[in-house]
Amino acid sequence: METIKIGLVGLGTVGSGVLQMVTQNQDKISNITGRQLSVKTIVVHDINKPRQVNTDNIILTDDLNQIINDPEIKIVVEVMGGIHPAKEVITALLNAKKHVVTANKDLIASAGDELAKIAHDNHCDLVYEASVAGGIPILRTIVNSFAADQILEVKGIVNGTTNYILTQMQQKNWSYEQALKEAQKLGFAESDPTNDVAGIDAAYKMIIPSQFSFGTHLTMDDMQVEGIQNLQLADVKQADAFGFTIKLLGIAKRINNGIFADVAPVLVAKDHPLATINNENNAVMVTGIAVGETLFYGPGAGGLPTANSVLSDIVSVTKNIVLGTTGNSFNNYQHENDLIVAKNAFFPYYLSLQMLDVPGQMLKLTKLLTDLDISFSQIVQTKNTAEYAYVAIITHEMNHFTIPKLSKAIGNLRDINLIGAYKVIN
Amino acid sequence: METIKIGLVGLGTVGSGVLQMVTQNQDKISNITGRQLSVKTIVVHDINKPRQVNTDNIILTDDLNQIINDPEIKIVVEVMGGIHPAKEVITALLNAKKHVVTANKDLIASAGDELAKIAHDNHCDLVYEASVAGGIPILRTIVNSFAADQILEVKGIVNGTTNYILTQMQQKNWSYEQALKEAQKLGFAESDPTNDVAGIDAAYKMIIPSQFSFGTHLTMDDMQVEGIQNLQLADVKQADAFGFTIKLLGIAKRINNGIFADVAPVLVAKDHPLATINNENNAVMVTGIAVGETLFYGPGAGGLPTANSVLSDIVSVTKNIVLGTTGNSFNNYQHENDLIVAKNAFFPYYLSLQMLDVPGQMLKLTKLLTDLDISFSQIVQTKNTAEYAYVAIITHEMNHFTIPKLSKAIGNLRDINLIGAYKVIN
Repeated sequence: METIKIGLVGLGTVGSGVLQMVTQNQDKISNITGRQLSVKTIVVHDINKPRQVNTDNIILTDDLNQIINDPEIKIVVEVMGGIHPAKEVITALLNAKKHVVTANKDLIASAGDELAKIAHDNHCDLVYEASVAGGIPILRTIVNSFAADQILEVKGIVNGTTNYILTQMQQKNWSYEQALKEAQKLGFAESDPTNDVAGIDAAYKMIIPSQFSFGTHLTMDDMQVEGIQNLQLADVKQADAFGFTIKLLGIAKRINNGIFADVAPVLVAKDHPLATINNENNAVMVTGIAVGETLFYGPGAGGLPTANSVLSDIVSVTKNIVLGTTGNSFNNYQHENDLIVAKNAFFPYYLSLQMLDVPGQMLKLTKLLTDLDISFSQIVQTKNTAEYAYVAIITHEMNHFTIPKLSKAIGNLRDINLIGAYKVIN
Repeated sequence: METIKIGLVGLGTVGSGVLQMVTQNQDKISNITGRQLSVKTIVVHDINKPRQVNTDNIILTDDLNQIINDPEIKIVVEVMGGIHPAKEVITALLNAKKHVVTANKDLIASAGDELAKIAHDNHCDLVYEASVAGGIPILRTIVNSFAADQILEVKGIVNGTTNYILTQMQQKNWSYEQALKEAQKLGFAESDPTNDVAGIDAAYKMIIPSQFSFGTHLTMDDMQVEGIQNLQLADVKQADAFGFTIKLLGIAKRINNGIFADVAPVLVAKDHPLATINNENNAVMVTGIAVGETLFYGPGAGGLPTANSVLSDIVSVTKNIVLGTTGNSFNNYQHENDLIVAKNAFFPYYLSLQMLDVPGQMLKLTKLLTDLDISFSQIVQTKNTAEYAYVAIITHEMNHFTIPKLSKAIGNLRDINLIGAYKVIN
C-alpha cells in the first residue's frame, strides 16, 4: 500500500496527539483511505527538549526547509499557534505545493480568506476543522449537512474556561473570583485569563462558523463582546430561581439581510439543550429554515480531541489526493454583498438592580422602564443589605439597543444601580 | 450554468420537502456546487391525487421507466419507503447508472450491503443520510469526523414517538396509556403504535450507525429489544426523585472485540446531555478513544428536516459528479472478522419491586440479591397500597445477564414482584 508522508510544525499537546493517533490508528485509516499515513519530519523550536511522545524514526528539526524542500511530504500540519510566524509558515508551505491542515483559530479568523486564495492558486487543500471548538466537527458539518438549507442562527458555548467557571458558580455557589482561582489551579484558565474571561477567545471562534453559515466574513469590530468578569453570584442564583442557567454564549443570527453577532452572558432555560453543557465542554447550536434546531456537543479543547479533528482533516485531504480532487475550498459559500451587520435584534432580557430601600423607589424604577418601552413578565425584590434592596426582572422582548439607553438613564440616578443586563433564551 | 436533473420516486411528506427545498434554495446550492439542480420527473402511485406542493413543469407519472430510460436524469431520490418494491426500484435505478439517494431505513438496515455492491458495480453513488434520525447528520459525521478515531460507543434517542411519550409522562405525570393517547391525537404515534413503542423502529435505526461506527453489520437478532409499554409512572417518578430521567436508548458498545447492542428504557442522570432531549427530538452520542464524548441533537423526523438530509446527500452526489468521483461507498469501514456479539456488559441497574408488606420481606429480598452478587448504592421503600410496599433500588455495576436470573428467582416467590429493571447512565 502506498504511504503518504506528513510533516508537523509544532509538537505541543495537539501535535503530540496527532503523532500518537497517526501511529495508533493506522489500520482504520488505511482501511478507509487505501493509504498508509506516516509522520516523517517535525519542525520544533528546540530539538533537544525532552518529549512525552515517541519520535523514533522521525526527523526532528528546527529548519522548516527540511519540510519545504522534501518532495515526499504531501501534507503538513501546523500546530504552532499564534499569527506570526504561523502565517508566513503556511504561506511558504502552500507555495511549495504542500496541503496544509491547521488548528490555528486566530490565524484563520484574521487571515483565512487570504490563505484560502494562496491555497487555491497552488491547487492545494487548506483545512482547519480543529480551529473551532476542538473535538466538535462543526465546520465540516455546516459545509456538508446544511449545504442546501438557509441557516438562520449559529450560537454556542465555545470557550471551555468560562464554561468551567460558570458551572462552578452555578453548582457550588462560588463567586467568580473563587471559581477563577480553582480553574487556574486545574489548568483550565491561564494566569492572565483576560483572553478567555473577557469573551475575546469566544468572539474569535464565532467568526469562522459564521462565515461558513452565512457566507459573510465578520470581523471583531462587527461584534459586541462582553465577558463574565462582572457577573455576580447573586445573579447566578436569581437566574437559577427563575429557571435559568447563565452561560457565555456566542450568537450569530441572520436578521433580514443582516447579521447580528455578539458574545455575552445569557440566561438559558434549564430545559434547553445548551443548559446542560457543563464544565469545560463546548456545544454549537445551528438553526436552519428546513432542519430546525440542531446541536453539536463535545470537548472544546484538549490534545486528543483536537488531534481527532486534525486527523479528520488529514483523512479528508488524503481522500482528495487519492481521488485527484485537491485544491477545492474548505468553505465555498460566498454571500458577501447583501449581508451587513444587523441594526436591530430583539431578545427578552434579565435585569438586576440594586436600589436604596426607601419608599417610592419601585415607582421611580417602573416609570423609568415604561419611558423606555420596557415591559416585564417577572419581577422579584429582595432585601440585599440593611439599606439596599435587590431587584431582578425578566423583560418581554426588547431591542438590544435599549440596554445602553437604560444604563445611561439609571446612571443619572444616585440611588439605583444596574448590576447586570443579560439576554434570555427560552 | 449546467443543470443536473433529478428524479423522485414518492411524493409524500419527505418527497414534497425535497421538491420545495430544491426549488427554494437554488441560489445557495449553485453557489456551492457550481450546478443548478432541477426535479424533472416524479413517480407516484396515483397521478390524479391532489398535491400540497407545486408540480408545474414537472412530469408526474406512475411509470418508473420514465426515469430509468431518461438519460438526462442523473440522480434519483427514493422516498417511497418499505422494503418491497423499494429494493427492486433502487436496484433497477442503479443498474440504469442512476445515482440513488434514499431515506429508507428498513431497506438499508436489511439490504444495505447488497445494494452498496450493486452501486459499486455500476460506479454509482448510493447515499442514505436521511435514513437515520431525520435531520441529524450522524452518518456523514461518523464517516468524516471519526475516520481516524476508534469509536467505543454509539448511543441515542432515535425514536421520536417514544421520546414524546416519555417526556409527557415525566413532565405531566401522565400514565403510559394517557401519554400514548395524546401522542396518537397529535399524530406523533400511529393507531397501531407497536413498531415504535416496542423499540423495533429504534433497533432498526441503531443498525446503520453501528455499522458506520464499528465496521460490523449487526442484525436484529444480535440485539435485545425492550420497549416502553410496561413502564410504570411510579418508576418515572421514583427515577426523578433519584435524579434521573427515563429515556428509550439504543446502545451499541464495543467491549473488547465484541459489540453489545440493545434498545431499552434507561435511567439517564439529569445533568447528562441526553436527559434534556425532549418531546419528538432525537440525539445520538458518539464516544471515541481520542475525541471523548460528543453528541448530535436535532429533529428525528418531519418532512423538511428529513428533506434537508436528502438534500445534503444530493449536494454530495452533485459534487462527486462535478469532480468525477462517483462510485465510492458511503461507508467504507469494514471490520467484519474479529467482532462478535459481546457476551458481558456491565451497567448499574434500577430495580423496582412490589412486595407484600409483612415482617422479614426486606431480609428475604436482600438475601436474594446478595446470592446473585447484586449490591446497591440506593434503596427506597414506600407504602404502595394497604397490603403492598414499593421498593426501588439503584445497584452498583452488574452483568446484564444477571437480570434474567433475578427475574427468574423473584418469579419463584409469591409475595415479591419485579416491576422494572432498567440500566442507569450517570
